[in-house]
Amino acid sequence: MMKIKALRDLMKERGLDAYLITNGDNHSSEYVTGHWKARSWFSGFTGSNGTVIVTHTEVGLWTDGRYFIQAEKQLAGTGIALFKMNMPGVPRFKDYLAKELPHGGKLGFDGRVISMTDYKELNETLKTKEITYAYTEDLVGMIWDDRPALPTAPAFEHAPRFAGLSAAEKLAAVRGEMEKHGVTAYLAVALDDVAWLMNIRGNDVPYAPVVNAYVLVTTDAAHAFIDYGKVEAFAGKLEAQGFTLHDYNGLAGFLGNLPAAGKLLYSPNKTNMLLAEALPKDLPTKSDLDVDIIMGLKAVKSEVELSNSRNAYLKESAVLARFIKWIKENPDITAITEADTAKKLTALRTQQPDFLQDAFSTIAAYGPNAAQAHYSPGNVGDNLKPDGFFLIDTGGNYFDGTTDTTRTITVGPVTDEMKRHFTLVLKGYLAVERAIFPKGTKGVQLDAFARAALWEYGLDFRHGTGHGIGYCLCVHEGPHGMSPNSKVDYEPGMLLSVEPAFYKAGEYGIRTENIVEVYEHSETEYGKFYGFRSLLYCPIDTSAIAVEMLNDCEISQLNSYHQRTYELVSPLLEEDERTWLYEATRPVIRG
Amino acid sequence: MMKIKALRDLMKERGLDAYLITNGDNHSSEYVTGHWKARSWFSGFTGSNGTVIVTHTEVGLWTDGRYFIQAEKQLAGTGIALFKMNMPGVPRFKDYLAKELPHGGKLGFDGRVISMTDYKELNETLKTKEITYAYTEDLVGMIWDDRPALPTAPAFEHAPRFAGLSAAEKLAAVRGEMEKHGVTAYLAVALDDVAWLMNIRGNDVPYAPVVNAYVLVTTDAAHAFIDYGKVEAFAGKLEAQGFTLHDYNGLAGFLGNLPAAGKLLYSPNKTNMLLAEALPKDLPTKSDLDVDIIMGLKAVKSEVELSNSRNAYLKESAVLARFIKWIKENPDITAITEADTAKKLTALRTQQPDFLQDAFSTIAAYGPNAAQAHYSPGNVGDNLKPDGFFLIDTGGNYFDGTTDTTRTITVGPVTDEMKRHFTLVLKGYLAVERAIFPKGTKGVQLDAFARAALWEYGLDFRHGTGHGIGYCLCVHEGPHGMSPNSKVDYEPGMLLSVEPAFYKAGEYGIRTENIVEVYEHSETEYGKFYGFRSLLYCPIDTSAIAVEMLNDCEISQLNSYHQRTYELVSPLLEEDERTWLYEATRPVIRG
Repeated sequence: MMKIKALRDLMKERGLDAYLITNGDNHSSEYVTGHWKARSWFSGFTGSNGTVIVTHTEVGLWTDGRYFIQAEKQLAGTGIALFKMNMPGVPRFKDYLAKELPHGGKLGFDGRVISMTDYKELNETLKTKEITYAYTEDLVGMIWDDRPALPTAPAFEHAPRFAGLSAAEKLAAVRGEMEKHGVTAYLAVALDDVAWLMNIRGNDVPYAPVVNAYVLVTTDAAHAFIDYGKVEAFAGKLEAQGFTLHDYNGLAGFLGNLPAAGKLLYSPNKTNMLLAEALPKDLPTKSDLDVDIIMGLKAVKSEVELSNSRNAYLKESAVLARFIKWIKENPDITAITEADTAKKLTALRTQQPDFLQDAFSTIAAYGPNAAQAHYSPGNVGDNLKPDGFFLIDTGGNYFDGTTDTTRTITVGPVTDEMKRHFTLVLKGYLAVERAIFPKGTKGVQLDAFARAALWEYGLDFRHGTGHGIGYCLCVHEGPHGMSPNSKVDYEPGMLLSVEPAFYKAGEYGIRTENIVEVYEHSETEYGKFYGFRSLLYCPIDTSAIAVEMLNDCEISQLNSYHQRTYELVSPLLEEDERTWLYEATRPVIRG
Repeated sequence: MMKIKALRDLMKERGLDAYLITNGDNHSSEYVTGHWKARSWFSGFTGSNGTVIVTHTEVGLWTDGRYFIQAEKQLAGTGIALFKMNMPGVPRFKDYLAKELPHGGKLGFDGRVISMTDYKELNETLKTKEITYAYTEDLVGMIWDDRPALPTAPAFEHAPRFAGLSAAEKLAAVRGEMEKHGVTAYLAVALDDVAWLMNIRGNDVPYAPVVNAYVLVTTDAAHAFIDYGKVEAFAGKLEAQGFTLHDYNGLAGFLGNLPAAGKLLYSPNKTNMLLAEALPKDLPTKSDLDVDIIMGLKAVKSEVELSNSRNAYLKESAVLARFIKWIKENPDITAITEADTAKKLTALRTQQPDFLQDAFSTIAAYGPNAAQAHYSPGNVGDNLKPDGFFLIDTGGNYFDGTTDTTRTITVGPVTDEMKRHFTLVLKGYLAVERAIFPKGTKGVQLDAFARAALWEYGLDFRHGTGHGIGYCLCVHEGPHGMSPNSKVDYEPGMLLSVEPAFYKAGEYGIRTENIVEVYEHSETEYGKFYGFRSLLYCPIDTSAIAVEMLNDCEISQLNSYHQRTYELVSPLLEEDERTWLYEATRPVIRG
């Protein structure tokens, strides 16, 4: 394979024993633009998780169980060996390197796309080998002739009526946190952190409306590193809010000249190692994994953001009602592919005001495909059939909010077992939604509420119950969540997905997901109590519910949700849609 | 006050600026014998939590909210100032020392009764002051003329039919764990750890049937440090199991001579700082807070221990049925004091085979007294009245198990509010008892099950939901538990208290507690699932239940528990007791 030969030639010239290739960008983004898909270009494997290691004798690709079949297909004939992560006997790529690299060997990679945390872990695994690292050259870039350029589309303002707080107010809040943490400078590298702080949005990354930029906040300045062309139209406004504009590529040099008086806070999980290495050695830094100022600030939505989000979710609720009606009443769903349904959703969203783009690639999964939690139909996918379940996990980025919803709907007959599993998942959702809990409660304490009904049957789902979500930003956002590892206190104004699920391999998948907001429920002598309130109102398919498995409390909770769905969403619909919604939200009764 | 003067004179001779006095013993025991109650003797304050600091200008006692009233009474006229812990503006005793001690000052205490962890924390708080510590002299002991001697009563064997595994088998298990942790020596200092390992019991501490002793296990020896007189009767058997007997006071010297080849594991939480300081400086040690070999081993009860415990709990169930009948049918409970009820329980236990002693001081609390979670009636207490709730939290040490149970019973009319609170607590108990959960689940994940019903009403209880328990040993045992801080996986064979509660200050307290065992419920493609099964069968007072607040599942769970209670316990009772139990365990039905 030409690419392998070309890369090995460059490695030889530089005396490298191995070269590591990923799809990361220089901001540790979840989604990256084509420019950064070095691993996909080099290997042909397009899954979201993959690492390639090239030595002079072997080329390997590491990916996880979601992608084994896809990777086998895409790697066929490339000469690249598939390393199936977490399978017995398969080494982690770091351990592979520890074994294959000679003592005193030399490992190369593009330092822009490896975070400081990843670099430290690599270092730790390889420490006895006394490895030298070559990380300032992007060897794949040198052989990648038709590499897509970095995006150059202009950025745009997130208008005050959407953003709520001005950038100057946000800067003041950041400086307040800096003071609490005893630092004089703070580096924001995550693109959604920067977009939130500057109240700008853009087109530099798929799905998340962000702009390639960094901000270094000091006690008396805010240095934004961004292509001037992208913000030319409103540069004066940014300067008026307190930002000094610098060239996007100027950050490393600027960091290198920081005065040693003071203390810098940065996130080693997000900051690439080239930037971290550029810091003056005598500059005191704080890089606690637990402290990330903007991540913490933007997780607690402001009143403006909350009220806008509620509006965005009503629009999305209307979109989903239309969509489900379209599926349910379709005269011939066998003519529809999974990808058609995703396109239909985008089209329906486009009719809504202030819609920007999909928030992620819709998971439209018929039948057994839905048993893969992260299935993607690609550009076509399978055709639907009038039998069993169809799962849709979808969301939109509106100027007034980011949505994420999953519904599993019947498109034909379902068995009693399918209904039982659907109902167990529903019971999990309802248990979380109705929970009232004191200030100080963390996700780890409530995660089991979503699972208890499944556990009773010896069942479970192998992912977290929920994640935070952005506001016209990324669909996955920290620092809170709901899983056995979620150790961040819930605070009113946080948004959270609640998405219990059940997957029967080879047969079907069930997931029911709403985004909820944390609200203050009451205050008693035991302190403040919080609760969850759904932002989205969309029917849960009652034809899939085994009503006899629900207790009175669950029935009344479900019926209330449906009643409220009709009240809130029907005004946004046409008459025939209203009629459909009325039927879909009828109360369930125990027979 | 003479004692203060005498202590200050000794302090002056030694150039000490402050002296710290606690009620600890040299094994970090929860309960200590009179010999070790230095703080109580010195200050007159007898509560379970208290620290005295003597300087040349002030004497202070620190205790928590449970004891403010008692401490005020007991300190009156002593010249000792009360420092109310956790109250606004009241410094922690460590911060008080940091403030009061002069730079380069000298602090004294009895190093035998301060754990290495406490010493390190003290050191950390005082580090900028460059304090010198004088910890080899027990100054209170020097002025304490009538100090009780250390107990000398003989120890006795925990017979094989009770102990299950032989001491030799337990030693082999300990050595297996030592190998896993990469150590060649392991120091057991907690008295229940030592008693478990050696299969001995004794009378050296109130409530817990343990013997003052240490064991140092190496790869080829087990050095037991214990008064020979206590084990003379069966010393040969101990030696045959692999123990080498040494003088109780010989441990520090022995540790000081340990060869530096090898690695020692010890618990800094339990090991007193004099012992830890005696270790050779060149001896590698492992003192992770998370690793405590015997604590981990003895938490998972063996089949013999489990089957014996079930038997001990049936005996205790009979005791409690008799006791509750006695209260409920008593012609004049106004003639009964709280202490009378505790004595009655002890008397009833004494009729049961293999009973040793109470496992802790019974909490017999009428009316508002029960709102204090750790109330003790002392030798008399209040008289009962035919009105409201009476709470009893009690347990016994039998050769075949240690019990701990709480019941709240009506002794007269109760209001709807009292019933509501009782029912919320009951719902919490039932939610935990019926939980099924996968291997790997920890207390932090299930604790909220016990609180969710209370939380819904803005209520809570301010203690953990549950603790581990010993086997003919201590009533509180680690490492597992159930609270927001419980991070240890549940394993089949662990015992756990489940004790949700509600306290209405000045009015009443409600707590419902059973000990449950963790058992393997099922194994599916999602792995092993565990559940909880109550060991104790005692009626939950149905006259205090608001049945309309229970759902079908809870009603059926409660009725099953009561049916099983009658089936298991009635054969152990006399006819009139059976009749009472039959009525007390009648199914509840929704009216």
